[in-house]
Amino acid sequence: MEFKTELEKYQEKINKELEKNLRKKPCLEQVLNQSMEYSLMAGGKRLRPILVLATYELLSKESNEKVCMPYAVAIEMVHNFSLIHDDLPGIDNDDFRHGKPTNHKQFNEATAILAGDGLLNNAYMVMSQDIQETKNPEELQAKTRIFCEFSSAVDRMIAGEYIDTECEGKRITIEELEYIHQNKTGALLTLCVRMGAILAKCEEEDLKNITKYSEKIGLAFQVKDDILSEEGDSKELGKPVGNDKERQKCTYVSQYGLAGAKDILETLTEEAVKCLDKYGEKATFLKQLAIYIANRRK
Amino acid sequence: MEFKTELEKYQEKINKELEKNLRKKPCLEQVLNQSMEYSLMAGGKRLRPILVLATYELLSKESNEKVCMPYAVAIEMVHNFSLIHDDLPGIDNDDFRHGKPTNHKQFNEATAILAGDGLLNNAYMVMSQDIQETKNPEELQAKTRIFCEFSSAVDRMIAGEYIDTECEGKRITIEELEYIHQNKTGALLTLCVRMGAILAKCEEEDLKNITKYSEKIGLAFQVKDDILSEEGDSKELGKPVGNDKERQKCTYVSQYGLAGAKDILETLTEEAVKCLDKYGEKATFLKQLAIYIANRRK
Repeated sequence: MEFKTELEKYQEKINKELEKNLRKKPCLEQVLNQSMEYSLMAGGKRLRPILVLATYELLSKESNEKVCMPYAVAIEMVHNFSLIHDDLPGIDNDDFRHGKPTNHKQFNEATAILAGDGLLNNAYMVMSQDIQETKNPEELQAKTRIFCEFSSAVDRMIAGEYIDTECEGKRITIEELEYIHQNKTGALLTLCVRMGAILAKCEEEDLKNITKYSEKIGLAFQVKDDILSEEGDSKELGKPVGNDKERQKCTYVSQYGLAGAKDILETLTEEAVKCLDKYGEKATFLKQLAIYIANRRK
Repeated sequence: MEFKTELEKYQEKINKELEKNLRKKPCLEQVLNQSMEYSLMAGGKRLRPILVLATYELLSKESNEKVCMPYAVAIEMVHNFSLIHDDLPGIDNDDFRHGKPTNHKQFNEATAILAGDGLLNNAYMVMSQDIQETKNPEELQAKTRIFCEFSSAVDRMIAGEYIDTECEGKRITIEELEYIHQNKTGALLTLCVRMGAILAKCEEEDLKNITKYSEKIGLAFQVKDDILSEEGDSKELGKPVGNDKERQKCTYVSQYGLAGAKDILETLTEEAVKCLDKYGEKATFLKQLAIYIANRRK
């Protein structure tokens, strides 16, 4: 199957699954539910849940991807929680996201704060229900391990966002820049592939391999984000370009220049692809995903 | 033991346990950690963790309260997350809490948003670590049940906070007022006693009894809060008095008048105490706690 078709098939599958978790019943908190839905269904790339599913498919001997779904949904909820809170006036004060008004612009600030809280907590609700229904001891053990790694990765993401915010306008070292991204973006992407791998009951060596792959694409993702923030098309991105410079944000572009950042991106992508060489054709999609991350225009 | 002494012993025990969960190590996100600690250790009454421990002690045949600690800590973290976010300029815009500047006043708004997020997520981290270490199948089952009830109760708390915020200045029915409080305050207090009871491996009938008790004290707690907001001492409360009226908030006092609200409080307290009659002397502390909630001055 062509990469783009496969990607879209994944996205469709995940959107359907997310739909199932929306609350449509009339209630006093209806608008809060709508605001969570607004952000969750705003049309992200679904990169994180796709990583869960594709890793599971790469490493599992069975092909019951249903086992991944609660975790794919949970990770997308957490991702959207972080976007809503990052966009808030008190943090990045952004007006647009995916070409649409940010949550607090569409609703109001109180609703956006609580919608973010709600999505973070919803992620745990979805997981807790799945864990409670799991009777097989081996599977239960895998899932409690995931619960542990999940909460730690979210902890790192919040810390990364904090440092990123606090470092605005300050000179920071390259080590600090890397620490920010490892936490802010990397931890969650690594969690995705590890969840897929743990659910696939793979060997520890495979878990190591896929973790390394995720670290490469995680960093690549951030480098690309920095490049797009500098020279991307604001229409395609659905948000203004050049904000980073204006805010004196420390980025890969500000540290290494545009050409330097592009070199780093290329190297990281090659290294990511190499991590999966031993899996042969089965790994084609995840390899192409690494290239897609490097080439994306939004 | 005298009630006040016992209460203080509990508080001391919980503060010690919370201390253990603080992160003191120097790191780039150190100030974020400090802001979480600032709110967590600001000197609340620790009512929620006390309910976990006291319920466990009432209903358990063993006396290993250590099993409760991760859940007592987690619930206090969630409680403080909700206070930090409720106080934000985008929600209640409060400047003081427990007689000290609110989190965003002491630090800044971005830090307060992320500290709240961090405390909510930390609650799940603490639980996830405990669950992962649990090998006994029966105990594991109890804890996964708690994880489920925990995330659902937090979901209700967030919904309640949303409705409360949105209803400001609007006329609402008594049913709506009750719905707000059942969600905003009640769900979490009920969770506390249920966690203690489930960890104690009690009979379903006891679980029902203690749940009913918690519903009564939950409502009583809110009625008392409304009374204190009207006629409390701002110095003792550590926050200004009369805000509710100014904001045209719908409260038990605005709905039933001061005397009416006091009658309701008395009835609820009597009913709460009655729920525990069958446990005899063993239930003295929890009975006195209900009375303490009704008589408290802050």
